[in-house]
Amino acid sequence: MSKKSYVSMSVIRRLPRYYRFISELKVQGVERISSQELSKNMNITASQIRQDFNCFGEFGLQGYGYNVSSLLEEIHKILGIELQHKTILIGAGNLGKAIIAHMDFEESGFVLQDIFDNNPEVVHQSIQGHKVRSTDTLSEYCKKERPEVAILCVPSDVVLTLCSELVENGVRGFWNFSHMDISQNFPDTVVENVHLADTLMTLCFRLKPSLEENN
Amino acid sequence: MSKKSYVSMSVIRRLPRYYRFISELKVQGVERISSQELSKNMNITASQIRQDFNCFGEFGLQGYGYNVSSLLEEIHKILGIELQHKTILIGAGNLGKAIIAHMDFEESGFVLQDIFDNNPEVVHQSIQGHKVRSTDTLSEYCKKERPEVAILCVPSDVVLTLCSELVENGVRGFWNFSHMDISQNFPDTVVENVHLADTLMTLCFRLKPSLEENN
Repeated sequence: MSKKSYVSMSVIRRLPRYYRFISELKVQGVERISSQELSKNMNITASQIRQDFNCFGEFGLQGYGYNVSSLLEEIHKILGIELQHKTILIGAGNLGKAIIAHMDFEESGFVLQDIFDNNPEVVHQSIQGHKVRSTDTLSEYCKKERPEVAILCVPSDVVLTLCSELVENGVRGFWNFSHMDISQNFPDTVVENVHLADTLMTLCFRLKPSLEENN
Repeated sequence: MSKKSYVSMSVIRRLPRYYRFISELKVQGVERISSQELSKNMNITASQIRQDFNCFGEFGLQGYGYNVSSLLEEIHKILGIELQHKTILIGAGNLGKAIIAHMDFEESGFVLQDIFDNNPEVVHQSIQGHKVRSTDTLSEYCKKERPEVAILCVPSDVVLTLCSELVENGVRGFWNFSHMDISQNFPDTVVENVHLADTLMTLCFRLKPSLEENN
């Protein structure tokens, strides 16, 4: 499937964005699109787009552009969305609940199987059809159910202990909402950190009046 | 305050990460740190760290390293956190509520003033001490209260109309959780998009078994 065995993180990070834009085109009934048109919509140069798609093989035709459906199907395959990784979520507080309600996991390649919390008042509650389990039962659960991925909606101070337990029990991917970067501590796992405060601080910086004058 | 009038987006995007790491050091009681030690913790080269900090002026001493408190204070100033931008949040659904409960806005440079929703069942409810207002009153509110920033927790199909109304009424910054990129449509505003599904798809791609073998 892949033309090059090594694809840089910057290309990888653009793939979901392509997927999102091209999905939108399909919804709008667009059948084909050139790299120039994509470029205008996405604020990426046409040459960058051609180069990115080229990493995974040729799927455009000179003078015709890209067939929207085929392109979408290809990116779907490249992203591995059909793999539908077995996933658990830990920490059913406000953020955890919002993520459960807000995200379409299967659309992104994951099946949310179970939810865990350490608060006795939350354990046994039902969230979107999932009964919340106690984190006391986590190791036992993992040994039996073999989830591959954990979504971490827990405070920083518990995240390292929790991840050690999960990694020992076969979890190899983390979608991490805690404030702590865990990539360094678990180098053999795949970690995507979501640091919401980081993007908020970036917004703060970019709003500075002095920048408006200078840039 | 700033040494260079133009600072690249990649440096800017690293600043909140520095702030987060150095805040953590301060909490741990660390008084000074070298670029080498920071490098080990952050997975950024020491030379990159020195170069980044150099963009904003010199605040380290050869052979001594950086004073943690001063460094933190400097980055706080550089990020403009003291500006405390007047902010409103629109869309008090699951995601909106979680953001209100989860984020420490003032820590990131914002004051959440009011919350809006178009659902009559939600309007007048109280969330963390804020009474939810109707989006029908948005223009009138903006003319009077002059919020600078809006947090958008609304569906894609309403986001463009909503932003037009807000921009007309003086809002110039958006923290956008809707699925639609609005940067292209409002070039004179500052937009930080948070596309949660993008990071989830990136995780999916990075979990592909073929990548483990190749990389």
